[in-house]
Amino acid sequence: MTGIDAPTHPFDTAIAVEYIDGHRLAGHTCPDYANMVGPFGGVTAAALLRAVERHPERVGDPLSLTVNYAGPIADGPFEITARPVRTNRTNQHWQLELTQDGTVTTTATAVFGIRRDTWSDLELSMPSVPGPDTEGVEPQIFPDFIAWGRNYDLRFVAGAVPDVEPTAEIPENPDSVSTLWLRDTPARPVDFASLTAMSDAFYPRVFLRRGRYLPAGTISLTVYFHATAEELAAQGTEYLLGRARANRFGHGHFDQIAHLWGHDGTLLATSHQLVYFKG
Amino acid sequence: MTGIDAPTHPFDTAIAVEYIDGHRLAGHTCPDYANMVGPFGGVTAAALLRAVERHPERVGDPLSLTVNYAGPIADGPFEITARPVRTNRTNQHWQLELTQDGTVTTTATAVFGIRRDTWSDLELSMPSVPGPDTEGVEPQIFPDFIAWGRNYDLRFVAGAVPDVEPTAEIPENPDSVSTLWLRDTPARPVDFASLTAMSDAFYPRVFLRRGRYLPAGTISLTVYFHATAEELAAQGTEYLLGRARANRFGHGHFDQIAHLWGHDGTLLATSHQLVYFKG
Repeated sequence: MTGIDAPTHPFDTAIAVEYIDGHRLAGHTCPDYANMVGPFGGVTAAALLRAVERHPERVGDPLSLTVNYAGPIADGPFEITARPVRTNRTNQHWQLELTQDGTVTTTATAVFGIRRDTWSDLELSMPSVPGPDTEGVEPQIFPDFIAWGRNYDLRFVAGAVPDVEPTAEIPENPDSVSTLWLRDTPARPVDFASLTAMSDAFYPRVFLRRGRYLPAGTISLTVYFHATAEELAAQGTEYLLGRARANRFGHGHFDQIAHLWGHDGTLLATSHQLVYFKG
Repeated sequence: MTGIDAPTHPFDTAIAVEYIDGHRLAGHTCPDYANMVGPFGGVTAAALLRAVERHPERVGDPLSLTVNYAGPIADGPFEITARPVRTNRTNQHWQLELTQDGTVTTTATAVFGIRRDTWSDLELSMPSVPGPDTEGVEPQIFPDFIAWGRNYDLRFVAGAVPDVEPTAEIPENPDSVSTLWLRDTPARPVDFASLTAMSDAFYPRVFLRRGRYLPAGTISLTVYFHATAEELAAQGTEYLLGRARANRFGHGHFDQIAHLWGHDGTLLATSHQLVYFKG
């Protein structure tokens, strides 16, 4: 939809940040993107990215973003500071903080830069899997307490979310791999901000391995943006293909890596996160 | 060696940082760990980690570290600020900056935390490869202009560094995978700081793919520490096994992921970096 009557997409409402002065911005959590505790981490990361995108001194497009989830974010207003600490000829380094009532809940760093044509090659090809409309590739219905899940159309090819109610026979999974098609619902053309959020749309791998929900939360998330703005624009509202897995679980933590390809096979982003868990 | 006559290992000299006051530390680049321009990025990352390790308010051991290489570091003194921005019950979030004459060259964030026993599993097993003393697993001799290379004993199983002098027939490699045994030389028991540096000891993947040296430099490096202090201590001075690869090259950048296992098969660390290249 276009024109003056076009409604604002809930994602744009959730990541809306406005400059107050200098390097300070105001934002507000959005119930549509609530997680079990506080907002969905992906939408917090996207709001931080958007803060840089909207800064008048911003140079280029996102290359990398690291977000550290230092403490819970309460429902309500928050403040972001976005400071360009160094601007080079072709890239720019940012430091960010998200605070509530003066308490730091989230820190981040970002690198933006100008892309240019060079030798190129894709080593990690998109896996060949059944399409999103294939029988058996069913939409995932999240439980009510995961509000943000309702804003994504997630169609799992493999490694779907376990049932909330553990059964007598918990089906532990031999590996932590999920492969799924995903897009915003309602549909929204993908951009760097939504790509950021989708990089965190893979539920904690420990749920899959243990076959049940457990207390778990992202400590640190890093996204590398491979896509150019043109490559992203070419995706429109098509499904992206995502694949996530973990390498090692132990001592209360695990890592989680994810890859996102466009429907045309372009690797758009890779993400890595360190996750805390109990049990 | 132990006792009062034990010489300081060059790595410890290179990452030596001393608190001046509050959150400020002084350090100095070390010619032994010089790279083509400025110091080896791994030793800069290790100095930043060491700054947190030496902070009187530090809680626990390293969980994750992200270092952003914003600009070149000149040979000579530098200053680090290491600020604990949030301390929780079981983890602590840090923001760091490395400056020279008031100019930011490097930013970083770190998460430290306390590990506890939980369910555990290793999904990414150590590849089965010939040992470091096998015929054909030859020590890599770096060219003179890569000083830091002389402080590592790198024995490549596959994907060795190309020759500096490009030949008429440049042997481009079909993939970006290097697999190698590595340890400090002279030998030094591995600790979190040296593990950090070794996470960056994999030369730029674009060299391997193109079969030659090119202008390239790390923009952002993230290390996840899977090892407990005890698991690290158990490694002693044995070789670690490393494997690195890239997922996508294009538009002046590529990503590079690396895994480091102990000789006993323990996954000690995973690292990811975004690298700038020309050509």
